[in-house]
Amino acid sequence: MRVVLWGFGAMGRSIAKALIEKGSFRLVGVVDRSPLLRGRDVGEALGGPPLGLRVEDDAGLIERMNPDVVLIATTSFVKDVLPQVELAVKAHSNVITIAEEMAYPFDTHPEESYYIDSLAKRYGVTVLGTGVNPGFVLDTLIIALTGVCSKVDKIVARRVNDLSPFGKTVMETQGVGKTPEEFEKGVKEGKIVGHIGFPQSIGMIARSLGWKISRIEEERRPIISKVYRETPTVKVEPGMVAGCEHSARAYVGNLCVIELHHPQQIHPHLEGVETGDYIEIYGDININLAIRPEIPGGKATAAIAVNMIPSVVKAEPGLKCMADLPIPRALLSDIKRSL
Amino acid sequence: MRVVLWGFGAMGRSIAKALIEKGSFRLVGVVDRSPLLRGRDVGEALGGPPLGLRVEDDAGLIERMNPDVVLIATTSFVKDVLPQVELAVKAHSNVITIAEEMAYPFDTHPEESYYIDSLAKRYGVTVLGTGVNPGFVLDTLIIALTGVCSKVDKIVARRVNDLSPFGKTVMETQGVGKTPEEFEKGVKEGKIVGHIGFPQSIGMIARSLGWKISRIEEERRPIISKVYRETPTVKVEPGMVAGCEHSARAYVGNLCVIELHHPQQIHPHLEGVETGDYIEIYGDININLAIRPEIPGGKATAAIAVNMIPSVVKAEPGLKCMADLPIPRALLSDIKRSL
Repeated sequence: MRVVLWGFGAMGRSIAKALIEKGSFRLVGVVDRSPLLRGRDVGEALGGPPLGLRVEDDAGLIERMNPDVVLIATTSFVKDVLPQVELAVKAHSNVITIAEEMAYPFDTHPEESYYIDSLAKRYGVTVLGTGVNPGFVLDTLIIALTGVCSKVDKIVARRVNDLSPFGKTVMETQGVGKTPEEFEKGVKEGKIVGHIGFPQSIGMIARSLGWKISRIEEERRPIISKVYRETPTVKVEPGMVAGCEHSARAYVGNLCVIELHHPQQIHPHLEGVETGDYIEIYGDININLAIRPEIPGGKATAAIAVNMIPSVVKAEPGLKCMADLPIPRALLSDIKRSL
Repeated sequence: MRVVLWGFGAMGRSIAKALIEKGSFRLVGVVDRSPLLRGRDVGEALGGPPLGLRVEDDAGLIERMNPDVVLIATTSFVKDVLPQVELAVKAHSNVITIAEEMAYPFDTHPEESYYIDSLAKRYGVTVLGTGVNPGFVLDTLIIALTGVCSKVDKIVARRVNDLSPFGKTVMETQGVGKTPEEFEKGVKEGKIVGHIGFPQSIGMIARSLGWKISRIEEERRPIISKVYRETPTVKVEPGMVAGCEHSARAYVGNLCVIELHHPQQIHPHLEGVETGDYIEIYGDININLAIRPEIPGGKATAAIAVNMIPSVVKAEPGLKCMADLPIPRALLSDIKRSL
């Protein structure tokens, strides 16, 4: 299958690597509008041998390269990714994007969702938002687990991860290295956003289970460090902010039915915090799941974006979410295995 | 949706309860060929108020009752369930069965699978085998987790459960209460079978991941008790068999790529064994999952059989497995939730 990748930042490169390692896909084009990347050989930019494929800044290559799928890794937000999705769909290409808000945009962006859905149907293609979270850990995996329940009363899940490998942008949007006062100010001004994806995960779970959510409450609290922590991009003295404890609660009437927590900080182990993904489901049976350490975000997002390609190509046209498609799976990566 | 239930033993009754508790289904008929059950009111047999629906021994009621789905809970084996599936399909009904061998019959019963698949396609209906295991814990859940991997080298999973609630038949097929010598003899004679479902789970995983399995090795070993254990149906003295440690290994060439373990015994905690479902995936990332205690078998099988109804009704015709369908999910069970 022919694939065009749109966006060649950190995530775009991970996706490119995952794609190239599979025998079954052909990366036929890479679009990135950054002037610094234009003309670079894709293979060399990935630290490997040249591929004879250069990064282009003109998305018109999509029409020219006739891809089965365009993978978009440019932004987290519906408003920013919408024109890119539109362009790819109008080139009659299926679309997979890791924009977090696209994992389940139906509740938060109903008009845009309706527009993308009908556009995709008119052009006979499928559009999917996916990723590790939203897209898997705090929604798809939870939904799959409820499949063995006759009755679900409440879902509580927590993803505890380590931000240390991430760069400056992530540190800023999580408030790492700020004073508690700067953190509160940053949250109020919308500069410290924490996790992007709670309303999407909640929306996907609620629709799958047939719950009508009356309201969602989100809370962002500073994780104030007791010890000195440091990464190549940030230093945190005791008393300063090591990360953001972001959580969301969804209610039916006044009953809290979904509680999602995603504390993100640098070097959590320095204060004895074990990273992991934790899911508790309460109902006619109780399920208590732990994945330790957590599923690593970057690699897993690249993997699931690539792994969903065949399902998206095969799916009926329209805007879909992970709960609409067959269960995800790793595509054959090692040809020796099939001999 | 209209549902006929075929089989009103322990599992059939659990399914009937799960069905009745949902508002969205209508149980329109119950078939069981046991003379002891014929004519009994279904509600009363479940320990509740009468439903005005009686158990019938004539499967001809399927044609008469015009169901959307027939749920079959009569046997573990393809050869025994095949005529029942055939009858339901020829009445133009979709079929869900918890017969373990039907969870993925394509490798173990290729001719029967081909026959059911083409019959279902000719009649425009869908046939699915499901259950907690095979059907979920050691296959569907594993496959879903590989969805966040770019490369999978090996899968090791273990389901450790407690047989204590089960009756005489299960104790016999697991060898509980036997001497080690009787156990070995029972295994050789095919009377002690352990878990039914390893080749099915392995087949579903392998096809999903694109692996061509060259051979599967199964092993059944006695769990010899160090302590006295007792249930209402069996007594186990120290030195006797408390259960069956059944495992399966699947190879590609000489490389073991899937290892599944399912030790089943009564009162495992008496020797400090913690029950649970454990999955390890090794690849470009490693995933280490634990569900403690294990997902309870009986309730979960009833739940997933009922929860899959809408997906099966909506699916394209043919013989399907869990990996072909959208991720399972709990159907709305509490109407208050949607108000």
